[in-house]
Amino acid sequence: MKTRRDPPILTPQQPIGRRALLRGALATAGIALPKLAAAADSSKGVEVKPWMTTPGRGVGSAPYGMPSRFESDVVRQATEHTPTTLSSWSFTPLDRLTGIITPNGLVYERHHSGIPDIDPDQHRLAIHGLVERPLVMTMDDILRMPAVSQIRFLECAGNSYTEVLRMSRAKTVQVSHGLLSCCEWTGVPLSTILAESGVKPEAKWVLAEGADAAAMTRSIPIEKALDDTLVVYAQNGEMLRPEQGYPLRLLVPGYEGNLSIKWLRRLKVGTQPWHTRDETSKYTDLMPDGTVRQFTFVMEAKSVITRPSGGHVLKAHGFHEISGLAWSGRGRITRVDVSTDGGRTWQRARLDEPILPKALTRFRFPWEWKGAPALLQSRAIDETGYVQPTRDQLIAVRGTNSEDHFNAIHTWRVDANGEVSNALSS
Amino acid sequence: MKTRRDPPILTPQQPIGRRALLRGALATAGIALPKLAAAADSSKGVEVKPWMTTPGRGVGSAPYGMPSRFESDVVRQATEHTPTTLSSWSFTPLDRLTGIITPNGLVYERHHSGIPDIDPDQHRLAIHGLVERPLVMTMDDILRMPAVSQIRFLECAGNSYTEVLRMSRAKTVQVSHGLLSCCEWTGVPLSTILAESGVKPEAKWVLAEGADAAAMTRSIPIEKALDDTLVVYAQNGEMLRPEQGYPLRLLVPGYEGNLSIKWLRRLKVGTQPWHTRDETSKYTDLMPDGTVRQFTFVMEAKSVITRPSGGHVLKAHGFHEISGLAWSGRGRITRVDVSTDGGRTWQRARLDEPILPKALTRFRFPWEWKGAPALLQSRAIDETGYVQPTRDQLIAVRGTNSEDHFNAIHTWRVDANGEVSNALSS
Repeated sequence: MKTRRDPPILTPQQPIGRRALLRGALATAGIALPKLAAAADSSKGVEVKPWMTTPGRGVGSAPYGMPSRFESDVVRQATEHTPTTLSSWSFTPLDRLTGIITPNGLVYERHHSGIPDIDPDQHRLAIHGLVERPLVMTMDDILRMPAVSQIRFLECAGNSYTEVLRMSRAKTVQVSHGLLSCCEWTGVPLSTILAESGVKPEAKWVLAEGADAAAMTRSIPIEKALDDTLVVYAQNGEMLRPEQGYPLRLLVPGYEGNLSIKWLRRLKVGTQPWHTRDETSKYTDLMPDGTVRQFTFVMEAKSVITRPSGGHVLKAHGFHEISGLAWSGRGRITRVDVSTDGGRTWQRARLDEPILPKALTRFRFPWEWKGAPALLQSRAIDETGYVQPTRDQLIAVRGTNSEDHFNAIHTWRVDANGEVSNALSS
Repeated sequence: MKTRRDPPILTPQQPIGRRALLRGALATAGIALPKLAAAADSSKGVEVKPWMTTPGRGVGSAPYGMPSRFESDVVRQATEHTPTTLSSWSFTPLDRLTGIITPNGLVYERHHSGIPDIDPDQHRLAIHGLVERPLVMTMDDILRMPAVSQIRFLECAGNSYTEVLRMSRAKTVQVSHGLLSCCEWTGVPLSTILAESGVKPEAKWVLAEGADAAAMTRSIPIEKALDDTLVVYAQNGEMLRPEQGYPLRLLVPGYEGNLSIKWLRRLKVGTQPWHTRDETSKYTDLMPDGTVRQFTFVMEAKSVITRPSGGHVLKAHGFHEISGLAWSGRGRITRVDVSTDGGRTWQRARLDEPILPKALTRFRFPWEWKGAPALLQSRAIDETGYVQPTRDQLIAVRGTNSEDHFNAIHTWRVDANGEVSNALSS
């Protein structure tokens, strides 16, 4: 055994709590080096724990693996704001996640009549309307076609609806921003399928319909349909989850999530939008002057700090990494700024590679917390030059009638006791 | 209801089986346009299916979601070659996956004494040996440090061991190449932790030890430890799975998987390798002349076609997309060639973005199958100019004593009846 040659019990000469954390790495970056207040229990540091003395669970015990039992509280949280679970939503636990990929089990949900249980052998996709050759495709037909995999975010139009009115006060980033996920999607470009069907010259719009009991239906401009829209069958390598449209969905990158019709069964090509229920009674934006914006597709640049965020507690003064997500429906994020003083001063955050168009981008910012109250904010800038607006700027233009497309800068308050909460709740 | 305005029953004028698939998309690419032999059942194409007439499962019914019941056969497969499940392995089902991300539930396993069930609050990481300041760190200490997320592959040194000897004959790509996965990993650069501990100038090697009952232990050159090695706590956004080292593991990008010590508990800095059990009795390469190569860390460039692959059946003549994975432990893949005639002629495949260093790269190649037997191969080239060798070239140099680091070009045979099998089994 190795343990005989290398004594397993280490007696640290200097426990971590008595010295400066990050002395080396951050000193060169010119960052102040706080003392770590909470001392690690050095005496138990390299004790041989019970799980080292007995063999563990064997290979094959979990043909499809699950998270550790110690992570059982990292789950989607259903909203409390709907009278039924059939037309409702659940939030991705952004406060417990890192990186840019959302694991499939935690991708947010928004259903309009529950999750259908579809047999892929029976599923069909029809293409009709203003086309030369109407088609009915099986899953086998679609799986044979030239495909592409792309990492793209999906965000509900209503993400951050809790933050429009000050009284909403989401306590966590899971509830304030968790109608947001990002996966690697695989599918066939819609342009390929439409080319096979032969779109007639007068075509201007495409209707997409889901096979759920709500027959969720949206109109999509032909330019977007022929640009980067995909007919998707896989997420993060495996076939779509039922909650995300198994066996087939649309992915309309950068557009509000409800256009990415799940359980996709039908595409109709036409000259005008269909003005369906979900683009008239829903998913429109009522402006302060009483007019309504319709077909506000693009999710503009937005960002949020996920750590620390509401419900977290800073257990010690000193170094903490501020980390979060930025994204834009118009392309790549070029820059994220972070403020720890409520927007008075800003500093540039580091962005993790890869920085992909219409995907989440992870930003990180080194911060020394000295124990004073702080107001943490992030501000995204995308490749079009668009700058994420402040809450006041956004409400001055849009008012508070509509809860959709709310992409304002968000503020987390850090109290002197280390508790982090939504600044809107103060 | 939408269905009243748009009649749900479409009568296609021309069912898909009677026309050329991919007429538009591929004609412009100069690719021959085969007829699709198997006709879709157009009469049932847009029938209203049972799941459209009844509301589905509600939001909140799966706080942590799982795949569709129709995908229950997409699982890890344990090897039949070990007498115990404690020191054994299971394969990622590459034949059923797409893209470059491996979903966490399907990441391959290799354990040496089972999977420990570790309480993260009790877990510690010790850094000692030739350092100025020995450290014992808690998970909280590590989670506060500056982190980075990176998409990187992990491959077992023994991946494709079944293909070294002709008698092995893996029937599927899951078994021939499934000791391979790719995730977005998040953690702290080991260089940051070592800088905190203060590595002494004479340091040349780092010992990493796991908290499993096998105390799995490997020696890592200090140059690699200070380069791109990470101390990782998350995969694909969420905390590590128990099978992948929860709550903490090493990630040594591009090196054979067993160096990426799981359940990481101890790092010792020294001047020489420790010659542990797992770098003497295992993970060495016996050459034809009887000498042994030790510390053969880097996984050289390799690729494999995952679709079609062993066990698949081409149900129709005509267009099929050939798709697979390429990767290199030395950096980025720059090119993948595909042959359908057993290596006589080669054509360049398309690579999906993003193409990341030491990550899987998905390649795709359009193929018209006319019904003749075919031999499908792929060949990876990386940014160093290294070209994946043929089986004969590799065995001429290495012999067949060692089953590790077998990165030869792999061949799938397509028979006239459409059945796909491992060409080595013929």
